[in-house]
Amino acid sequence: MKEIIECVPNISEGRRKEVVEEIIGNLKKLEVKLLDYSSDEDHNRTVITFVGGSENVVNAAVQVARDAVRLIDLRSHKGAHPRMGAVDVIPFIPVKNVTMRDCIEISKRVGKIIGEELGVPVYLYAESAKKEARRLLPEIRRGEFEGFFEKIKDPEWTPDYGPQEVNPTAGVTAVGAREFLIAYNINLSTKDISIAKKIARSIRESSGGLRYIQAREMPLDEKGCVQVSINILNYKKAPIYRIFEIVKMEADRFGVSVLESELVGLMPMKAALDSLSFYLQFPELNEDQILETKIYE
Amino acid sequence: MKEIIECVPNISEGRRKEVVEEIIGNLKKLEVKLLDYSSDEDHNRTVITFVGGSENVVNAAVQVARDAVRLIDLRSHKGAHPRMGAVDVIPFIPVKNVTMRDCIEISKRVGKIIGEELGVPVYLYAESAKKEARRLLPEIRRGEFEGFFEKIKDPEWTPDYGPQEVNPTAGVTAVGAREFLIAYNINLSTKDISIAKKIARSIRESSGGLRYIQAREMPLDEKGCVQVSINILNYKKAPIYRIFEIVKMEADRFGVSVLESELVGLMPMKAALDSLSFYLQFPELNEDQILETKIYE
Repeated sequence: MKEIIECVPNISEGRRKEVVEEIIGNLKKLEVKLLDYSSDEDHNRTVITFVGGSENVVNAAVQVARDAVRLIDLRSHKGAHPRMGAVDVIPFIPVKNVTMRDCIEISKRVGKIIGEELGVPVYLYAESAKKEARRLLPEIRRGEFEGFFEKIKDPEWTPDYGPQEVNPTAGVTAVGAREFLIAYNINLSTKDISIAKKIARSIRESSGGLRYIQAREMPLDEKGCVQVSINILNYKKAPIYRIFEIVKMEADRFGVSVLESELVGLMPMKAALDSLSFYLQFPELNEDQILETKIYE
Repeated sequence: MKEIIECVPNISEGRRKEVVEEIIGNLKKLEVKLLDYSSDEDHNRTVITFVGGSENVVNAAVQVARDAVRLIDLRSHKGAHPRMGAVDVIPFIPVKNVTMRDCIEISKRVGKIIGEELGVPVYLYAESAKKEARRLLPEIRRGEFEGFFEKIKDPEWTPDYGPQEVNPTAGVTAVGAREFLIAYNINLSTKDISIAKKIARSIRESSGGLRYIQAREMPLDEKGCVQVSINILNYKKAPIYRIFEIVKMEADRFGVSVLESELVGLMPMKAALDSLSFYLQFPELNEDQILETKIYE
């Protein structure tokens, strides 16, 4: 059974195309499958997505990190997105025939190499975190590159791997294992942003809603409506259908209905089949029952 | 873009394992992917499912036919399932990067070879049929092997390819292109078979219901309920969610609810995503948005 791990390095360069192309070009020579890479100029950041088996994913992640450290100088980096490292964060996601535990091991191997060979302090985050305070990326990243020269002296923030000093040009890096994240939006039949705000607040974990859910309101001026913009951090524990039905129910009390859903990027087949099973009342519907899965197995 | 055609030959042998294994063994040597084969002893019939590109699917279909004609003698064949040929029927189904028109062409190439090289009369059926009377397999098969010695003399039943006489041991064969067929059952919270019967009648095409739908009632004694057993002959025109919602609605008038759905065999990913899009209100949700599809592309 072929194992598939997804890796999504975020690097702090979204403007100098030649730098991004060099990193991508080197990545393409390796035994992993590049699924996507997209640069955001405002954010000055590029998100790279590739998949492969454990050994290959380790090699590829290290190479992206090595290139980013060599080519990016954070002292001159400006962008809308908060960042703390040339390679800012490297998550590993279990996709097929591989467990979260395997991905935690992989993140530790990669973290150790980045720390020791590239001389960049590494923090294990998400499922790999050794302390609760390091689970959430925004907590680690608080203060960003510039603030880390002080932050790293705090014993609370001793890195998990690598030197006890910030790399002068490449900062620090977070490496960890996490579940696949689904970015999912629901558009509502109203222009009243306060309604989207109330609904976002009612579903997100941080306001006492559902675990694993981040949500906020967004005005969509061109479409003439408002949106509840959602991140599902664990689609197995917080399935899409449940989010959708709760948003629909909450909207209904304001006399508002759902115009449409929107998926940003990808979702795993299991997430799609789980929601379909809910609606069509399949006790179990798995990937083996999908023709395409059998073909590509 | 790699083309994928599915081929599902039905051969009239489900008891002599050595015969089935010889046919499958020869098939495995070819450049197609065997997805499944299952023999039914009562039916005395084996259904083989494989996929591949056009050239390879043509070669593999011809080889299965050649082996079946060589190894099966219909004069001594008995079974519950109606049959007219050693290789009874060979459907070709477009799966990926291939059109129905392509599959019709493939069925004609295979039909011509079986007719001319193997000396078995061939009828083009389903989408490949040249006459309306040959669209439906039961129409062609009526009279079965034994009856065909007379039937073939009727100018209405002149074969599309091959000799104008029944092959004495291998009978006649139907070859054609069709859509993927989804076998789908819905179990109801009642033991009253008359309710399943009424619902089946209300949805099936032959009783004036939905086009492309075959349905009948089935008592499920062990589960202590009844079932509406459904074939969806064209899942693009008659999506699963619509069948499910109509059955649910019709059941409701009898105070009966849906216990569960059941998929028999496989369904294409497009069928799953179409129904999911209906419920979650995605304007479009396509295979490219499913992580696994991107990985295996």
